[in-house]
Amino acid sequence: MVAALKPASAETEFGHFDDERREYVITRPDTPYPWINYLGSEVFFSLISNTAGGYAFYRDAKFRRLTRYRYNNVPVDDGGRYFYIRDGDTTWSPGWKPCRTPLDHYECRHGMGYTQITGEKDGVRVSVLFFVPPGDHVEVQRVTVENRSGQARSLQLYSFVEWCLWNAEDDMSNFQRNFSVGEVEVHGGTVYHKTEYRERRDHFAFYTVNAEIDGFDTDRDTFLGPYNGFDRPDQVAAGTSGDSVAHGWSPVASHRFDLELAAGETRELVFQLGYVEMPDNDKFDADGNLNRTAAEALIARYDTTDKADAALGRLAAYWDDLLSRFQVKSHEPRLDRMVNTWNAYQCMVTFNLSRSASFFEAGLGRGMGFRDSNQDLLGSVHLAPDRARERILDIAATQFEDGSVYHQYQPLTKRGNAAIGGNFNDDPLWLVLSTTAYIRETGDVSILDEAVPWENDETRTAPLLAHLKASFDHVVRKRGPHGLPLIGRADWNDCLNLNCFSTNPDQTFQTTGTGEGQVAESMFIAAQFVLYGGDYADLCRRLGDEAEACRAEGHVADMRTAIADHGWDGEWWLRAYDANGDAVGSKDSDGSQIFIEPQGFCVMAGLGQDDSRAETAMASVEERLACEYGIVLNAPAYTRYHLELGEISTYPQGYKENGGIFCHNNPWIVIAETVLGRGDRAFDYWRRIAPAFQDHVALRKIEPYVYAQMVAGKEAFLPGEAKNSWLTGTAAWNWHAITEHILGIRPDYDGLCIDPCIPADWDGFEVTRRYRDATYDIRVRNPDRVSRGIASTSVDGRPVTGTTLPLAAPGSRCVVEVVMGQA
Amino acid sequence: MVAALKPASAETEFGHFDDERREYVITRPDTPYPWINYLGSEVFFSLISNTAGGYAFYRDAKFRRLTRYRYNNVPVDDGGRYFYIRDGDTTWSPGWKPCRTPLDHYECRHGMGYTQITGEKDGVRVSVLFFVPPGDHVEVQRVTVENRSGQARSLQLYSFVEWCLWNAEDDMSNFQRNFSVGEVEVHGGTVYHKTEYRERRDHFAFYTVNAEIDGFDTDRDTFLGPYNGFDRPDQVAAGTSGDSVAHGWSPVASHRFDLELAAGETRELVFQLGYVEMPDNDKFDADGNLNRTAAEALIARYDTTDKADAALGRLAAYWDDLLSRFQVKSHEPRLDRMVNTWNAYQCMVTFNLSRSASFFEAGLGRGMGFRDSNQDLLGSVHLAPDRARERILDIAATQFEDGSVYHQYQPLTKRGNAAIGGNFNDDPLWLVLSTTAYIRETGDVSILDEAVPWENDETRTAPLLAHLKASFDHVVRKRGPHGLPLIGRADWNDCLNLNCFSTNPDQTFQTTGTGEGQVAESMFIAAQFVLYGGDYADLCRRLGDEAEACRAEGHVADMRTAIADHGWDGEWWLRAYDANGDAVGSKDSDGSQIFIEPQGFCVMAGLGQDDSRAETAMASVEERLACEYGIVLNAPAYTRYHLELGEISTYPQGYKENGGIFCHNNPWIVIAETVLGRGDRAFDYWRRIAPAFQDHVALRKIEPYVYAQMVAGKEAFLPGEAKNSWLTGTAAWNWHAITEHILGIRPDYDGLCIDPCIPADWDGFEVTRRYRDATYDIRVRNPDRVSRGIASTSVDGRPVTGTTLPLAAPGSRCVVEVVMGQA
Repeated sequence: MVAALKPASAETEFGHFDDERREYVITRPDTPYPWINYLGSEVFFSLISNTAGGYAFYRDAKFRRLTRYRYNNVPVDDGGRYFYIRDGDTTWSPGWKPCRTPLDHYECRHGMGYTQITGEKDGVRVSVLFFVPPGDHVEVQRVTVENRSGQARSLQLYSFVEWCLWNAEDDMSNFQRNFSVGEVEVHGGTVYHKTEYRERRDHFAFYTVNAEIDGFDTDRDTFLGPYNGFDRPDQVAAGTSGDSVAHGWSPVASHRFDLELAAGETRELVFQLGYVEMPDNDKFDADGNLNRTAAEALIARYDTTDKADAALGRLAAYWDDLLSRFQVKSHEPRLDRMVNTWNAYQCMVTFNLSRSASFFEAGLGRGMGFRDSNQDLLGSVHLAPDRARERILDIAATQFEDGSVYHQYQPLTKRGNAAIGGNFNDDPLWLVLSTTAYIRETGDVSILDEAVPWENDETRTAPLLAHLKASFDHVVRKRGPHGLPLIGRADWNDCLNLNCFSTNPDQTFQTTGTGEGQVAESMFIAAQFVLYGGDYADLCRRLGDEAEACRAEGHVADMRTAIADHGWDGEWWLRAYDANGDAVGSKDSDGSQIFIEPQGFCVMAGLGQDDSRAETAMASVEERLACEYGIVLNAPAYTRYHLELGEISTYPQGYKENGGIFCHNNPWIVIAETVLGRGDRAFDYWRRIAPAFQDHVALRKIEPYVYAQMVAGKEAFLPGEAKNSWLTGTAAWNWHAITEHILGIRPDYDGLCIDPCIPADWDGFEVTRRYRDATYDIRVRNPDRVSRGIASTSVDGRPVTGTTLPLAAPGSRCVVEVVMGQA
Repeated sequence: MVAALKPASAETEFGHFDDERREYVITRPDTPYPWINYLGSEVFFSLISNTAGGYAFYRDAKFRRLTRYRYNNVPVDDGGRYFYIRDGDTTWSPGWKPCRTPLDHYECRHGMGYTQITGEKDGVRVSVLFFVPPGDHVEVQRVTVENRSGQARSLQLYSFVEWCLWNAEDDMSNFQRNFSVGEVEVHGGTVYHKTEYRERRDHFAFYTVNAEIDGFDTDRDTFLGPYNGFDRPDQVAAGTSGDSVAHGWSPVASHRFDLELAAGETRELVFQLGYVEMPDNDKFDADGNLNRTAAEALIARYDTTDKADAALGRLAAYWDDLLSRFQVKSHEPRLDRMVNTWNAYQCMVTFNLSRSASFFEAGLGRGMGFRDSNQDLLGSVHLAPDRARERILDIAATQFEDGSVYHQYQPLTKRGNAAIGGNFNDDPLWLVLSTTAYIRETGDVSILDEAVPWENDETRTAPLLAHLKASFDHVVRKRGPHGLPLIGRADWNDCLNLNCFSTNPDQTFQTTGTGEGQVAESMFIAAQFVLYGGDYADLCRRLGDEAEACRAEGHVADMRTAIADHGWDGEWWLRAYDANGDAVGSKDSDGSQIFIEPQGFCVMAGLGQDDSRAETAMASVEERLACEYGIVLNAPAYTRYHLELGEISTYPQGYKENGGIFCHNNPWIVIAETVLGRGDRAFDYWRRIAPAFQDHVALRKIEPYVYAQMVAGKEAFLPGEAKNSWLTGTAAWNWHAITEHILGIRPDYDGLCIDPCIPADWDGFEVTRRYRDATYDIRVRNPDRVSRGIASTSVDGRPVTGTTLPLAAPGSRCVVEVVMGQA
């Protein structure tokens, strides 16, 4: 076993991993960009930065936002749940922000569904643990104030949140209305935010604390003073509260405690920020106030430190259960760190949030993407199979009968977004990927018989299998002059707009033009069709429909031929043909000459292996696209606007889809290398973008524990600087690449398949995998130092032929011994 | 002549009027809300607050925003054009913000198209005069630094603006793209902002200064530091510049000067923030940089203090010319102040901006309203008749052939906004108001022959007169069970949604439902039809089309009958019938029983004068709607949501359309009182909302020199608190009421008509009015202390019969003597 590339516990200037506790520990607050975490598991979510910035929402970050947050603000990340400690002339915050008073000690621990922030100043330590209990609609904030100073202290503690008037987009634009509608009620230590509750809303929010308060405020100007920042509220400066009741303008919630702490004394408080829906006929009490019954019942579930700790225990058990489904032990602790904790965690976040709400996604519009959410299931179906099933059916219900689909749908309504529409011609086939991944994981073919609406119309339904057929035939029907798939508005690369021709900067690229062009073709969709079209045929055959399987295989064979005849440029695969019929991504192209997507997907689809094209393409990727921070999308980058190519040519060189390292597609090359049996290269490519391996923390800027959507490429002004952390298909695809293709633990229809492709100098690894209700303790040894190949496999001592393990009995546990080498 | 109600020069705690200089002088920076001004006259505009907050844009506040501004921020009004003075350990700003360092002296003078902000600290005085030269696309900032300390001083001066990436909505939501696209060029002291210039944009912005700089920054994080507010930039704290060139993230522009000032020395600098468009084929220079030729030519026009001062002189002349068209001298200086300066100024701003960009209108969407822009012409047609003509034709071009219209259109494209659509059934008739007001002012009937497109389609046009007919017939065709006009989505009161029935808070009221209901009727549109339908008939008769005049009068007579038979509730006019056929605004109604709109408009239309209904209705208004801060829209306010009434019932009691003083409609009552000859009441109602008469400055909160859209009504939590200043039809309608109906100087088809209706204790007033290229010096005397009635009128000593003056020869000046009394 080789030595780790670098000690895994390496402390950087900003923090370190704590693998034992599954935490990232941030040791100074002024990180290069706010480093965030997500609280919440199902419908109630909070974003929280390392200084407690961020916001909470229920189900939908646009339509049900609880607290106000201002993106791209000055100072960055202003707005959150803030605590102020007033200690004589000094006011400070345990999270440093918003006061930014220097602290004697600071620490933020981002864990699995919780964040703990601790600050200490002049002998007073305040620690706040934030989490959302599984199954409830509330963010719990467990506050500990500890007097470590050795003498009695008089302090004041203030809490603060600012309410969003529910619709986050309207909240930041419609001031003519919004400055007049804000309403609250205050009952004891509970501030209820009830804007518009009198009318169409059947929901309200609250911020409460489990002890008698000494004062409160609900009017922002009264608490802060209009010209003050969050860093110096008027009331805190004066040590007072206004006991203000907001009428319009900006409602907030703040509690005040006047604390007398003896030497060594600790005071604990539990705050709760919650959301409640009420039946229409039960919204009010006899006085015409809001009916607090349900809210009080919710509050009572977490209104002591013990109850909060018990809920925290349930949260830990929830994550233990999830993460225990795949645990690896290798001699590369940074690999273990990614697989056992952070990659899986990020996959769960992308499953929950899709691309809707991060510190780069404003939560205003994108909702759930059709292709995004299908691909995200690659990383989460083993964690949450029941929810994956529901998600697949939700997604499929936005499909039209002709196989086309809505490109996005809103999480609140689950309805397709008509403003964007469809005609992104790669979209439909991703449904085959997600569905087959689900069945391979669960064995549950009954999902194929589920009646799924067309176009969200419950009166028109078809079995899910018919939706897969519609996806398949959508590509078959939409082919261009070379027999390759028409691209529509765009394929996977949203910025490759071959039917757009926009000259007006006030247009969006994707929705300009109809996307109905009959000439521009996508080599990406072609390869995708070979791969997932083949999977569709295979599925049909397994279901006993040989005729449909043969029909599908015929179309796939035609596509292989079209790719072979029209898709190869000599040293790599072309990217596309534009609307003029000219090749895109060719050595003869003006601008970019090679693209990453077809190289990865063609090899993944098994193309180029009977000739030398696969190896040749991979060599071209290494030579022309790879750099130390990953593999760029295309090269050279475009230096001028290409009307015939669209948005891709609008980015500055080296950024985003124009020569950036678009991490989502890097694992396609990783997988392609494993297809070729080259474990060293596969692992090396993965390592370049896997967050645990990134030592240039300050340059990279974003969270060291999650993948970025994009890292600036070799032609950029600042190569290696990353953007758009958290919500990216990168998480799921890298999970897929590392677990199923490098470690080679791959669920298949008939059972778990073990076929690693690793660096040749590894002597093995161990994996524990829960699969179809059984647990597999897998030990892989590599005595001959091969990259691929199985010499022998046994289960509980019994030899197994082939790479697929027999299904273990539900509830059982088995030991799998795999020896790599010559078969 | 009565004494003024209060000395006009009264100093408040925040400032005072300077009538001589036509300025409002703000004497402390922490006004209750930012008090703003507008720079720019035609296409390039800046909003500027009393602390230099705000932003600039070209034509369209959504699509061409130059600088970034964050609405409803904490601190309020963060973002603007900022100057920092670094003086040893002290850093301060002449506008107080953003540093908020206490100043020894502070003054902001908001004038006609310019704002001058002066701050002094420790013997250094810095004054910045901001203005946009007429006809150019640049904000000039003329800076004077004066060392008054009596000793030599070393200082540093920093400038700062933050660029908006052009589309203001996208700029605050699409971070996935925007953080990667920002680009600048720096040449000498000029920072060019050229984001997206490489591709579809043919425009860029610049920030320059007319002297050699000692440093610069264009990357926001480098200048500020990510965790700092605008109040303490890292570079200023260090006395350095980063000389940073932005690549993505947030581009800014900052200059640094290291100044050595002898005792008594003054240093002058001229900064310019400008916008340039380039022909597509001339965007770049030979090096591939942006072509700076046009920018340098623009910069050269204002690159010395003398040139800037000359431009300032031209700006003063521009406003002198405009305002000299109507000047009054009465014994009520606050009336003079409104009419001579601030009401006219606000009218010009609403003409320019419609409802698009203020500190309450975020500049993101409403664009130009059909009804808004037509009504705004009431206050601006005499100031800018040529531009009014163009505006009328632009507005009319958004009409459909059936007479319906787009409710809004974008100023950049002049095309109707399909997202909102039409079916606001009062909209079409406002075109009659604007067109007849234009002809009455100018005598230019040729406008009626202009070929105007339907639905912005240049291939389908009709003369403007045909558009008026279409507007008229649209109402004729759309009538309900009582013969009253169908209301559609809403009438003038956007919040009275009688065909909506929305139960889902994620819907907008106005666009929910089709607005095609065949039952709900509007008494407002009925009265509007009598008034403007009558004007249409009158116009047809003047044009010689007696048949059309008679046809139109027949329909108007039918409407009078319908109103008489179905529109009276016993002591006031009804407001509407809802979709159930139930009366809205009746003594029997659940909720509001009386509304202001039909009372004003019915009397304005001449209804209720042959019986006692007009007087009875006005008595009801006084009894039930009037309060010390104005006249509320409806009473009592709704206390629950009425599904059948829509948004009006969603506001808290006393705010906005639910019992607020919606100032736009108060002048309708003012005019109605003049129709009844009651000048005292008319003036008294006007005085209650006219800004110069408001002494409760801190309570009122918004600018003391402009009307508000809404003042909280008597049932509100805080009666008298005002919101939504500047962009409201209130400005035009009050201009119309005070000048044409109280002072009674009324343009008519055949000439200027003089028929005042004033408080009986006035002994007269004087007006100078430019009208159709002649100047009328009008002296009104009221020896008998009547409110209305003309005893005699003479022009240049020659008696005139009737109230209409003979047209004076173009270029001439005449003296008009009017004696009020018994005819």
